[in-house]
Amino acid sequence: MKQTFSPKTGNLNLITDVGGLLVGQSEDPIAETGVTVLTCPSLWTAAVDIRGGGPGGRETAVLDPENLVGGVHAIVLTGGSVFGLAAADAVTVALSQEGKGLNINSCHNPVPIIPTAVLYDLANGGKKDWGNTPPYYQLGKTALQKADISFDLGRAGAGYGALAGHVRGGIGSASLDLDDGIIVGALVAANPVGSPYMDDNRHFWAWPFEIGQEFGGEKPDIRQVSYNDPFPDIERLSENFRLKGGANTMLAVVATTAELDRNQTKRLAIMAQDGFARAVRPVHTPFDGDTLFALSSGAVSIAEGKIANLELARIGSAAADCVTRAIARAVYYANK
Amino acid sequence: MKQTFSPKTGNLNLITDVGGLLVGQSEDPIAETGVTVLTCPSLWTAAVDIRGGGPGGRETAVLDPENLVGGVHAIVLTGGSVFGLAAADAVTVALSQEGKGLNINSCHNPVPIIPTAVLYDLANGGKKDWGNTPPYYQLGKTALQKADISFDLGRAGAGYGALAGHVRGGIGSASLDLDDGIIVGALVAANPVGSPYMDDNRHFWAWPFEIGQEFGGEKPDIRQVSYNDPFPDIERLSENFRLKGGANTMLAVVATTAELDRNQTKRLAIMAQDGFARAVRPVHTPFDGDTLFALSSGAVSIAEGKIANLELARIGSAAADCVTRAIARAVYYANK
Repeated sequence: MKQTFSPKTGNLNLITDVGGLLVGQSEDPIAETGVTVLTCPSLWTAAVDIRGGGPGGRETAVLDPENLVGGVHAIVLTGGSVFGLAAADAVTVALSQEGKGLNINSCHNPVPIIPTAVLYDLANGGKKDWGNTPPYYQLGKTALQKADISFDLGRAGAGYGALAGHVRGGIGSASLDLDDGIIVGALVAANPVGSPYMDDNRHFWAWPFEIGQEFGGEKPDIRQVSYNDPFPDIERLSENFRLKGGANTMLAVVATTAELDRNQTKRLAIMAQDGFARAVRPVHTPFDGDTLFALSSGAVSIAEGKIANLELARIGSAAADCVTRAIARAVYYANK
Repeated sequence: MKQTFSPKTGNLNLITDVGGLLVGQSEDPIAETGVTVLTCPSLWTAAVDIRGGGPGGRETAVLDPENLVGGVHAIVLTGGSVFGLAAADAVTVALSQEGKGLNINSCHNPVPIIPTAVLYDLANGGKKDWGNTPPYYQLGKTALQKADISFDLGRAGAGYGALAGHVRGGIGSASLDLDDGIIVGALVAANPVGSPYMDDNRHFWAWPFEIGQEFGGEKPDIRQVSYNDPFPDIERLSENFRLKGGANTMLAVVATTAELDRNQTKRLAIMAQDGFARAVRPVHTPFDGDTLFALSSGAVSIAEGKIANLELARIGSAAADCVTRAIARAVYYANK
């Protein structure tokens, strides 16, 4: 009873295969940190799902279903922990100056909604003695200026100073074409305390989800994989900076062309979060600030005759798979 | 850099390896449904994490950290969707008559706190024309009377009428001994719409987590596994009863001997939920009512000199692994 599905990525195998979405990134190689900005051409329906024990962010409550707006003009993912939040200030004023945002009153410029989440890369060895002038405002501004459909994976943007367990983390992205015009994509800044590798310390947990050789194409030798400590390497991780509150974190955005309402977009976020669990172990620890945003461009209506929640389940599962693949691609490209 | 951890289950490889916890089950073979009751010897610290799109339950809000009690005397998992909730009525009066519960006022019997969650098995072919007299009150009463440290896996209790994708679901359980006296265990009533099998429709997603041959010991042939449709079998599942709202669901309880406070127990529940994602795909769909309870017996304090949140991360990861293994064991025993 093998399935007949032929998996097909979008053209770029990036989140920007969801038409309209652009990604810009900037880095500070001295401070070993960076910023990733995603822009939407208009207010896209959005939701957020926070599952880590040490989250940091801004403008996330605005996405709760009982609150007013429920959409975004852009999303910022950034290194720098709480200092990184300033990156969103730069994106906010720049988009507003371009006329992008909610037109609430003609007496002021538009009000862009830009939810933001941070990861912790403060102790990665980069020069962080910035005093009153952290680099994030400028990094946010530069990242926005570079927004494009293509962008770098690996050691780039918000993932520039990231770690994944003991190896380099980074930025990953992946997409899936579900036919019917429905594209699903994910972007992850992967900086988890847990490991992306199985017990052999070499093969990705994500291996069953790989399409082609998008993260190296290596499959594990089953004989080399056995059940492992629930938190491998806990002693080594304790000895360095990693195991501090909020000291780690995966940040993700998933997007789809499918037209979803806010509640459906929240379900998409919940299902996509499972991609974290399939790619990294352990995950959602007290030390991770794992945060995931979901976006619907609304470009493609669910086809007539389809059961909306059934399609949502399939899109949600695809999003989880894209997150899993994006995490492996982040680590793969960062360590190539 | 292989790890040196030697995985060791508890004595029974059941959730009842967490000392004090008892499990009783009862079934109605004509109606093809059943009930599973877990009892604690006193009010154990507890939390709940609900991630499915079609949950059903009672007494879950009492566990929210901002509310008063935050503990349980028993937990009921039941088939029968909303009709199954009556099972908890029987357990409530029986425990109260035994003197178990909160002693709020001497003018009445004690008030036991018994959070309950239901799964949907109403359309599994069993005789459900019970009119005003569903069997769940009696099933709850009987299950409680049978509470013991040993109990059946597979087609039993709340899992009696369960399905997992297209095969039988059931009751599964597993435990892990972390040394230091810390035991972690899980019990799952596995009735997910998604599949516990990889693309070859034969090997468990859970295989990397198996200890010994607790669910058959079969490892996949890597060459037979390829990336699969995000929601395999969606057409076949649409044709039968499975894809209705709340028509599926996995219910789980995890427990540990470690002394955790309410907030830590909530983090334990969040981390344990990842076990669902590693054992079944897709999961947390709109059609699943996935609900997970976490319990701390408080028997073992975190050892001096250990970092509490680090231990919590390890216990949470162990709980996720136990959930993954329990799901595979449920399906393995139900289909043996």
